[in-house]
Amino acid sequence: MNKKIKKINASILIIGNEILSGRTQDKNVIFISNWLNSKCGIAVREIRIVPDIEKTIIENILHLSKKFNYVFTTGGIGPTHDDITAKSISKAFKVKYEFHKEAYEILERYYGKKKFNDGRKKMAKMPRGAKLIYNPSSAAPGFIIKNVLSFPGVPSILNSMIENCKRYLVKGSKIHSKTINLFTVESNISKQLELIQKKYKKFVDIGSYPFFRLGKIGVSIVSRSSSITKLKSVNKELLSLVKSKKIKLLKL
Amino acid sequence: MNKKIKKINASILIIGNEILSGRTQDKNVIFISNWLNSKCGIAVREIRIVPDIEKTIIENILHLSKKFNYVFTTGGIGPTHDDITAKSISKAFKVKYEFHKEAYEILERYYGKKKFNDGRKKMAKMPRGAKLIYNPSSAAPGFIIKNVLSFPGVPSILNSMIENCKRYLVKGSKIHSKTINLFTVESNISKQLELIQKKYKKFVDIGSYPFFRLGKIGVSIVSRSSSITKLKSVNKELLSLVKSKKIKLLKL
Repeated sequence: MNKKIKKINASILIIGNEILSGRTQDKNVIFISNWLNSKCGIAVREIRIVPDIEKTIIENILHLSKKFNYVFTTGGIGPTHDDITAKSISKAFKVKYEFHKEAYEILERYYGKKKFNDGRKKMAKMPRGAKLIYNPSSAAPGFIIKNVLSFPGVPSILNSMIENCKRYLVKGSKIHSKTINLFTVESNISKQLELIQKKYKKFVDIGSYPFFRLGKIGVSIVSRSSSITKLKSVNKELLSLVKSKKIKLLKL
Repeated sequence: MNKKIKKINASILIIGNEILSGRTQDKNVIFISNWLNSKCGIAVREIRIVPDIEKTIIENILHLSKKFNYVFTTGGIGPTHDDITAKSISKAFKVKYEFHKEAYEILERYYGKKKFNDGRKKMAKMPRGAKLIYNPSSAAPGFIIKNVLSFPGVPSILNSMIENCKRYLVKGSKIHSKTINLFTVESNISKQLELIQKKYKKFVDIGSYPFFRLGKIGVSIVSRSSSITKLKSVNKELLSLVKSKKIKLLKL
């Protein structure tokens, strides 16, 4: 086994009634997961979506921050009454919820003294000891405290901020993936696929996902690993399985 | 307080590495939440997305099935090695994982005896005592055991099956919602909004969500409640707030 492989994981905590109620389609999970994977070698291992309830947020922050290397929260850091993420995280970590000097200055400069009202001031309140994650689109910063990183819920704003949290993260080994798309049904290859997965259990995760394309049924086989060598070996075995079964490949 | 209001809740457990890795955009959360809300008066209160790992699935099934009236799982009931939902739920509830007679017959009839291979047979294995949720698109049924309902992960198939689980659910009071869209910024109304929310705390949930439309910034105020009367009162207060602040409404 390659001793140089460094596994770093993360979880995402989506805070917001609007996702739970089905009003809003979440777009942050896919964005954060892909970014962490491709840019930081960090694998997302669990995601939770919870309502704007202080007790629930506290419980989840404590649980996830113990279990994973990082916790990314989205939502609940705006100016309104239902924005309780920063306050809840302060309570979870038993630190004061107070004005962050630099965040206050950034927001005051952005809005101008006259328009810097109480709602806007609220966005400068954070857990004591938090460091800022700068926001190039709408000024109000996110923050990191311990291993918890908090972002706003609006996807376009979150997307614009994500690079600014990179310096706080320990990077893991890049997770490589390889996909082959087959015009067959899962049950036609399930037995052999299981054998290959068992053989490479420690090194490669193999997933099988049905698809419908050009009016035909197919299966995408996705292999993921930190080791390119092992990934190549798996791919070779998969291709010889495909050949032996005379399955047509879909070339994209 | 209206004594007739019946609150029923649910959680969703999405099982699948492909969502966690960012490969696939989840579409099941929004569909199930909306369907439960509008057709059954059931509110989704928590969502979790976990990998295809038996121990993790068992822990989450046990936790969520205790905490909520219903748990909806999606994914992991196909024919391949990474489909371990039915087996994991059997272990969670300490019941045998075995062929379900009717499911076996349905699948055998669908594929024909000759093409009914081991992978396909696997889809007839369920926790002992499970009842079927019929599948009009691709035959392989979902199932319900205790308060846990299991569906496949492919959205089009899940969508076609959902009505078939209705008979197993106790319905709650319909959750009504009312949205007003304002051309203003959140911080302009946050103080008054908080007062209205506090006043109706027990009856109405008020959420505030920024939007960008026609090049302008706006806020959607969403009120949700089982009581139409309380919802109307909140709406009246919101409209008088809008009027007093001379805010323009976006009519859709």
